[in-house]
Amino acid sequence: MTDLSVKMEISFKSIGVVHTPFTSREGMPIQPSGAAGILGTIELNEDLVDGLLDLSGFSHIYLIYHFHRSDGFKLQVTPFLDNKVHGVFATRAPMRPNQIGISVEKLLAVRGNILEIENVDILDGTPLLDIKPYIPAFDIYKTEKSGWMENNRNTPRQVKSDDRFK
Amino acid sequence: MTDLSVKMEISFKSIGVVHTPFTSREGMPIQPSGAAGILGTIELNEDLVDGLLDLSGFSHIYLIYHFHRSDGFKLQVTPFLDNKVHGVFATRAPMRPNQIGISVEKLLAVRGNILEIENVDILDGTPLLDIKPYIPAFDIYKTEKSGWMENNRNTPRQVKSDDRFK
Repeated sequence: MTDLSVKMEISFKSIGVVHTPFTSREGMPIQPSGAAGILGTIELNEDLVDGLLDLSGFSHIYLIYHFHRSDGFKLQVTPFLDNKVHGVFATRAPMRPNQIGISVEKLLAVRGNILEIENVDILDGTPLLDIKPYIPAFDIYKTEKSGWMENNRNTPRQVKSDDRFK
Repeated sequence: MTDLSVKMEISFKSIGVVHTPFTSREGMPIQPSGAAGILGTIELNEDLVDGLLDLSGFSHIYLIYHFHRSDGFKLQVTPFLDNKVHGVFATRAPMRPNQIGISVEKLLAVRGNILEIENVDILDGTPLLDIKPYIPAFDIYKTEKSGWMENNRNTPRQVKSDDRFK
């Protein structure tokens, strides 16, 4: 049943870079919900600026980016918000087989190739892979269960990152 | 201000493959919200199965995948749900500079390296890049505006894909 595509290497190029106040992996906000009011900018490659047409109509956007400071991966990790080990795919930890991060950011303004964003939980210098509009009709789901997060008393507002994924 | 990382090539490997009823890009559901009840499976690479520990506690998961049947990209597109041109970053269209798709799927069961999923809007054979838990506290945002989607009378329940992104 295994498809040949499973072994395929897939190459992307950064479409721009995210500028934020965070130059160290320690002490960072965990998730945009722990980064209220923190401002950043996206510097999109200038040859892609036509792709931003009408983006400013959306108040929230997905950023898809490369966790460029994570080397290697672990299949089981203890996430910042818990004290138990979980499979990496059951967490949002950066040390993943493919080091891809997603964050929903508030979009404040688009000026040429610069996007001003808020609620930024991303390291300075992060290579950006994609921007997509956050659309409630597509992106909000009623969940029945949220696994280890349900019994967890920590929230992103209370917890910052430490050096465990160095 | 431009960082050298902007030009960097970033390589990923498929972590598995998505099996679905959809072998053609035409007539497919648009977004999981247009794919109610449609079943699929994920076949995760067997060496990654330890990464699934505790994932079954979550009712919904993000899949991040490669739009492997899209060649090249356009900076401005007319999305399936509208009749006007928009910047590709203001749409979820597949012909993007980096052909990365995200979908939130309902997770029905995890059996070894096989995940049973529902509400599948993905082409058969799609290479999977990442799985993350969908966590309401991280992923649900109150939006102030939704751009061109606001005035749009079409919904994913009414519209299927056609051959415009071939």
